[in-house]
Amino acid sequence: MRISELSERSGIAVATIKYYLREGLLPPGVRTSPNQASYDEQHLRRLRLVRAMIEVGGIPVATVAEVLAAVDSPEMPLFHVLGVVQGSLGTPVPAAPDAEWERAHATVRAEMDRRGWDMKPSPQAIDTLTGVLVRAAQLGYPDWGTEALPAYFDAARLVAENDVATALAADSRDDIIDRVVVITVLGDTALSAIRRIAQAQVSLERLETGTRPTD
Amino acid sequence: MRISELSERSGIAVATIKYYLREGLLPPGVRTSPNQASYDEQHLRRLRLVRAMIEVGGIPVATVAEVLAAVDSPEMPLFHVLGVVQGSLGTPVPAAPDAEWERAHATVRAEMDRRGWDMKPSPQAIDTLTGVLVRAAQLGYPDWGTEALPAYFDAARLVAENDVATALAADSRDDIIDRVVVITVLGDTALSAIRRIAQAQVSLERLETGTRPTD
Repeated sequence: MRISELSERSGIAVATIKYYLREGLLPPGVRTSPNQASYDEQHLRRLRLVRAMIEVGGIPVATVAEVLAAVDSPEMPLFHVLGVVQGSLGTPVPAAPDAEWERAHATVRAEMDRRGWDMKPSPQAIDTLTGVLVRAAQLGYPDWGTEALPAYFDAARLVAENDVATALAADSRDDIIDRVVVITVLGDTALSAIRRIAQAQVSLERLETGTRPTD
Repeated sequence: MRISELSERSGIAVATIKYYLREGLLPPGVRTSPNQASYDEQHLRRLRLVRAMIEVGGIPVATVAEVLAAVDSPEMPLFHVLGVVQGSLGTPVPAAPDAEWERAHATVRAEMDRRGWDMKPSPQAIDTLTGVLVRAAQLGYPDWGTEALPAYFDAARLVAENDVATALAADSRDDIIDRVVVITVLGDTALSAIRRIAQAQVSLERLETGTRPTD
């Protein structure tokens, strides 16, 4: 198809598609004349993937290019794709190691030890979580971590079981990349939205009954 | 205390504190001379809250000012504070209502009906979630919603029970504002980080055993 049809089917402006081509977010089409190239379904698919990463995940264009180059490289084991996409979702690490940081890190470590979880594969996420607990302590809630982590870890485990099953159902390299973006980028936004829905629902139940429902 | 001490204790530059004062993110101190004002513990507390919203939540300064004005107003029922802070966490609504949107919305509605959850209090979050399912369908996974929502809703409910209990333990207006920021802003970042930790753990277990663990 021509770039105009690619634009029509994806809902993305021709100028934007040309920008993505220049930045390497989209592989070039097959030249059919000096001024024209032809694109196929793979281009459409990649274009939708790029939009999801940029618009839903808020990932900068340059980072999207790096992630795609990494996951497209044949040396990348398929299973590492999850880590690469996760790494692109920058999460702030808001504190430097000090006594408060050590205390928060010990809280995270205790929760993971209790579950027998390996800390090695997730240094970045563990740092982010530690930073969050430091912030909570600074806001006057030093025990929030201890109180909230058991429920948060139980919830994350439920979701992760589903996520990994979705990733493992992939049948090709392209398919796993798409699935990982669905899981990480869309999944984060979905979980955050559902959490707000659930907070509203639980609040409503508390206000109606004045007690903790048995559900 | 003077602004220099406020800066030292909060770790925030004097120039930044002055900027927050001008933007109304921080109430003015008590004038002690034409060029000096005095600040107290409430200022320090508010400053930490503002930093958490900006640095961890990524909320723009102007939005932080609006949120604080809303939650500070005496007419605001304490229980609505949660909704105001949530509303400030802009989540993209990536699709306009069409047939695909209707299908995705029906998936969300079915899941909420099944649980007997009220859709009225969360129109924005439901729109966001619907938009995510539309994106997943565009990426070639029209059934992701149906497959993932049960686990995501169970997980969100677990977390929300904990969140609402934390909010209800507040003993003053200032306390509830701080708690709601901890729950919404820090909680979102924490859950996202823990989800990555759990994905790594579940992946590791799958790779080691090649089967679904009984855990």
